[in-house]
Amino acid sequence: MFDSKNPQRTPISSLGEFGLIEHLTKNTILKQPSTALGIGDDAALIDQGEYYTAISTDMLVEGIHFDLSYMPLKHLGYKSVMVNLSDIYAMNGMAQHITVGIAVSNRFPVEAVEEIYEGINLACARYNIDLIGGDTTASHSGLILSITAVGRVEKPKLAKRSGAKNNDLVVVSGDLGGAYMGLQILEREKQVYLENPDMQPELNGHEYILERQLKPESRKDIIELLEGLEVVPTSMIDISDGLSSEVLHLAKSSEVQFNIYENKIPIDPSIFTLCEEFNMNTTTVALSGGEDYELLFTIALEDHDKIKANPNLTIIGYVKEGSGAHLITRDEKVVELKAQGFKHMEE
Amino acid sequence: MFDSKNPQRTPISSLGEFGLIEHLTKNTILKQPSTALGIGDDAALIDQGEYYTAISTDMLVEGIHFDLSYMPLKHLGYKSVMVNLSDIYAMNGMAQHITVGIAVSNRFPVEAVEEIYEGINLACARYNIDLIGGDTTASHSGLILSITAVGRVEKPKLAKRSGAKNNDLVVVSGDLGGAYMGLQILEREKQVYLENPDMQPELNGHEYILERQLKPESRKDIIELLEGLEVVPTSMIDISDGLSSEVLHLAKSSEVQFNIYENKIPIDPSIFTLCEEFNMNTTTVALSGGEDYELLFTIALEDHDKIKANPNLTIIGYVKEGSGAHLITRDEKVVELKAQGFKHMEE
Repeated sequence: MFDSKNPQRTPISSLGEFGLIEHLTKNTILKQPSTALGIGDDAALIDQGEYYTAISTDMLVEGIHFDLSYMPLKHLGYKSVMVNLSDIYAMNGMAQHITVGIAVSNRFPVEAVEEIYEGINLACARYNIDLIGGDTTASHSGLILSITAVGRVEKPKLAKRSGAKNNDLVVVSGDLGGAYMGLQILEREKQVYLENPDMQPELNGHEYILERQLKPESRKDIIELLEGLEVVPTSMIDISDGLSSEVLHLAKSSEVQFNIYENKIPIDPSIFTLCEEFNMNTTTVALSGGEDYELLFTIALEDHDKIKANPNLTIIGYVKEGSGAHLITRDEKVVELKAQGFKHMEE
Repeated sequence: MFDSKNPQRTPISSLGEFGLIEHLTKNTILKQPSTALGIGDDAALIDQGEYYTAISTDMLVEGIHFDLSYMPLKHLGYKSVMVNLSDIYAMNGMAQHITVGIAVSNRFPVEAVEEIYEGINLACARYNIDLIGGDTTASHSGLILSITAVGRVEKPKLAKRSGAKNNDLVVVSGDLGGAYMGLQILEREKQVYLENPDMQPELNGHEYILERQLKPESRKDIIELLEGLEVVPTSMIDISDGLSSEVLHLAKSSEVQFNIYENKIPIDPSIFTLCEEFNMNTTTVALSGGEDYELLFTIALEDHDKIKANPNLTIIGYVKEGSGAHLITRDEKVVELKAQGFKHMEE
């Protein structure tokens, strides 16, 4: 109806998600005295005097972030909360509130939206979160969830992406690659089903990795553990896009070099068997798999004794002066780590 | 792939938007001591000791909330911020921060997303807001914007939907119906264009109402004005769905009866001419039009003198004991007001 004002057409794919956000927000001007941290970390920070309020927003879009042919709606509700809480925990804070926006087409009945809310409410109950607001609206096509998590970070405990220092140790919680391998199983069984709808999906024995994909937990327990151990990470990020990508974020924000030992990366034994079956490399899966929602952080060398015996935490490397990140392979070769998000792997 | 767990299929339309939200959140349990107000007002409130943090989330979905055939992307970005700030002002607070989530299909080039951000940045600059976070993601279909606004409300100034009292005066800012009539013009010209793409849209002379629809402002100035006048509204709401709907929200939350004089409702002179042309009733348009983003509030009778001379504010009625809302027509008949949102009018 009106003349196009877009004579130039640069495809979004040419920038990628991180590139696009960086491009769009490079001219952002912060003027509010209470803004302690803007775009570029897991959560933004508002200064409340004694403490910070941390805020993070994530959108989950049908067909991009989830596939309803194998993602139960209740799990989707649960996972969408986890994804957001994880960003608050990654600041070494406690998530307290969420708002939920849902855009839903009329192909969904009320009962479907109820199931999503069951998952959201279960997540809120387990993680002690209050659902305080939101928006429910029609959509002409898919289902979209947009959640904003709000939390509180005590000032002396704040862990940003920047802050890692020479000689710090690199630590990761839990194990990696499970969520990605769970997705492989689900995608395989979906193909089998599409070819023969009478076949029942073969999911037995894969409970752990399926749960990692369909019903991940965010690591509130690690934040409580660190508090108990009196350890404040020097830097922290959550692992949503894969270890490589997150290690590089910390290295870049902290202006140091990360060195990761391949043989230290925690991987569940079931992943090894499964990777053989799928003809995949376990390290690649752990480095690039994504969606594990574990925490990656650095601690000062003198805190080593406090965490070394903990089964939830694995020291996987160290920080030194420099830039970028290296993987020290099992045969002691040093390889440069490249960002290789989850999405790239699928292409 | 898995058996459906939805044998019951209640259509969402049978509940409506407000009904659905009420249905979904009726079992919400609030446990955080800092939660001062949850779902059910313009914004949620988190207690920060001396003051409240107000938070509100709104989603704007292509084809539901906007039509890109006549909504310029820059205006869309601007309006999406206004819609959210308006909810913070409606608590008698000052908006300070926003996070922005955008889901965008690859039919949009980078330049299109840049235009949306130009509008967002302009809104932030004019309203002194910091853009502190967000999410940009792919979408398989339309464009979706999800914005969360965060603000600060001084405790003695808080104005909730509840709080209107017997003998209070009902006040509205600006004028009503403009945004809806702007939409009528745009829809008419779109039809003309679809029938004959060589025709140029006839928009001259309709600048005011087109701006009301395409580039509304939120009423930060009214919050500042009330502060200057030392008036704290006893209750307040923003007019997004139409005067009727908002009056009934205040009446229900405050457990009182609202009485509105038809001849006091502020309507721009251009609306009268246009309503004749479209064979519409101006009062119906003002009552049910929606999207004006003006503020509707009540004040104590003794504050009457402070606001009476102000050209930005119109006293349109009074509160008495009881329930529901009445319209006192030009010929002094008393009619019960029914909620008749903007969406219903289009059907």
